Amino acid sequence: MSELTNRQYYLAARPSGLPTERDVPWRDVPVAEPGEGEVLLRNLYISLDPAIRGWMGDDPNYIEPIAIGDAVRSSVIGRVVKSRSDDVAVGDVVMSVGGWERYTIASAAALSKLDESAGIPLSYFLGVLGPTGLTAYFGLLEVGRPRAGETVLVSAAAGAVGSIVGQIAKMQGCRVVGLAGSDDKCAWLRDELGFDAVINYRSCGDCEAAIRQACPDGVDVYFDNVGGEILEAALACLNKFARVAVCGWISTYNEPDAPGPSARRLWQLVANSVTIQGFVVLDYSERFAEGVAQLAEWVMAGKLKFREEVVSGLDNILPTFHRLFDGSNQGKLVIELPEE
Amino acid sequence: MSELTNRQYYLAARPSGLPTERDVPWRDVPVAEPGEGEVLLRNLYISLDPAIRGWMGDDPNYIEPIAIGDAVRSSVIGRVVKSRSDDVAVGDVVMSVGGWERYTIASAAALSKLDESAGIPLSYFLGVLGPTGLTAYFGLLEVGRPRAGETVLVSAAAGAVGSIVGQIAKMQGCRVVGLAGSDDKCAWLRDELGFDAVINYRSCGDCEAAIRQACPDGVDVYFDNVGGEILEAALACLNKFARVAVCGWISTYNEPDAPGPSARRLWQLVANSVTIQGFVVLDYSERFAEGVAQLAEWVMAGKLKFREEVVSGLDNILPTFHRLFDGSNQGKLVIELPEE
Repeated sequence: MSELTNRQYYLAARPSGLPTERDVPWRDVPVAEPGEGEVLLRNLYISLDPAIRGWMGDDPNYIEPIAIGDAVRSSVIGRVVKSRSDDVAVGDVVMSVGGWERYTIASAAALSKLDESAGIPLSYFLGVLGPTGLTAYFGLLEVGRPRAGETVLVSAAAGAVGSIVGQIAKMQGCRVVGLAGSDDKCAWLRDELGFDAVINYRSCGDCEAAIRQACPDGVDVYFDNVGGEILEAALACLNKFARVAVCGWISTYNEPDAPGPSARRLWQLVANSVTIQGFVVLDYSERFAEGVAQLAEWVMAGKLKFREEVVSGLDNILPTFHRLFDGSNQGKLVIELPEE
Repeated sequence: MSELTNRQYYLAARPSGLPTERDVPWRDVPVAEPGEGEVLLRNLYISLDPAIRGWMGDDPNYIEPIAIGDAVRSSVIGRVVKSRSDDVAVGDVVMSVGGWERYTIASAAALSKLDESAGIPLSYFLGVLGPTGLTAYFGLLEVGRPRAGETVLVSAAAGAVGSIVGQIAKMQGCRVVGLAGSDDKCAWLRDELGFDAVINYRSCGDCEAAIRQACPDGVDVYFDNVGGEILEAALACLNKFARVAVCGWISTYNEPDAPGPSARRLWQLVANSVTIQGFVVLDYSERFAEGVAQLAEWVMAGKLKFREEVVSGLDNILPTFHRLFDGSNQGKLVIELPEE
């Protein structure tokens, strides 16, 4: 049974900059057998997220680095093809931590079962109804804590997380301003998602001046997906008691030695009693059910729009991953591995 | 009446580095007359605090910069010698925003009256029972939010604020570790104030390694008075959900273009869901009475020890101010202007 060969993309070396085919080569290995309490998944969808780049390095992080020789780690959705757990049946569709591979062995205790019959495209559970949407939901509401009438600035606003952050902030009664890297993305944010103002950070020239113009009352919440120069510019525009929710710093993942914001800019902490708070979605794992229910309600009601790009074929995974960092993706990126 | 000449040290130029006699020269000017609702104070004590250096610059800050030509701004304690307010009588002793000068005109509405008859040395109201003590009290309890059993790391721990922070943290049941710049200061913290461990940052070599050794369970709260390399080292040692209370960055006041922490270090924000929060004591002005009452109770009960250095003579003010930045002060610095 030729399908029971597992093709996987594994970490051969810790990348410097964007991971290359030498850092992340592929191999075909025999499919392993699940142990007691484990299941074997045939992966259907693999999530591509900027955070994966961080796990490829060996700096301290919120989860262990990917070990050299292991398949690159991702969230996956798969169908159970073998089960050694009474809680999970062959044929069930589940979400799990998995890898850039066709088959994943997963612990039954760490899975979430998905309901195929609800008619929701399965890939949504990696995006707007999964870690991506939950990151936006908890990061904005619990870390950013926007109040009606405040101004919320979002970077990477056309990205999978940023686009949801902006729409939830609108529902909170905020003025929402997005930074994105193309006129097309800016038009989508403004015309389709209802952002109050948008800034193309590639063409705006002086980013700080552009933020000041788009945020005439200053910035109360900055939802930071990118770090670097945009963070530096945003810091300069913060109001008294502003909150900066640090979701990730995509501008630095491939340049870990990039300088942080200058002391002069960080003085905003004291000058305006600012809070800068990092978070990861796992901090809110006990409230995931609440978050998914609210996000699903908004999606069903047409209040929450999103884009996903589903790219077919495991062999496209590395060039597709690169698109997260060159700005050419539009919304959530997912690799699909169709069932034969 | 010769005393009614006002000697004042005023800001002639914004300093680069430590303020010199050319940046802050003195002059004798006629004493001004209080307007309606104002009083004339004969200053008795002038508070010297690192924050004053920040007000001499023109970067955005939590209060307006000192205007060129104005007396250098400080908290002062003075006796009312003329009053045009029904609320304040000649002879009253009050605390006010004032200047590096013998006489200050102050708005009666912005004064706090002090009770000389309570037998508390008046200078304490600039220190442990004033802005200094309140900064420690609210900064630790409201921003740092230590819980019993946690580890609290304090920089400039022998300073006016840091020494109070450490003692309050001990009263919360925390392990308290202090960073200071001399063996004498370290001995005082350990032997007199009860710190669990101390680090002489000038002689410890690798500061990060020294913090790790002194904080075997990691750091839950870092109360940051200094910024710079010590902040960088402390960031590396933070636990999950750690809080960094940014009180001030004395290492950068004379070097505003110093780099901030590197992006790699600030990644702790996400790696450990860390909160970095700046504050100023004015954020808690509605609760000052509560804070002073608690601090006074601890002082009376002998639970809160402190050092102050009272230097006599307005003409010593600039060299005394410099001592805040070379590490030679021990606790709160106050200039006394004895009544003749």
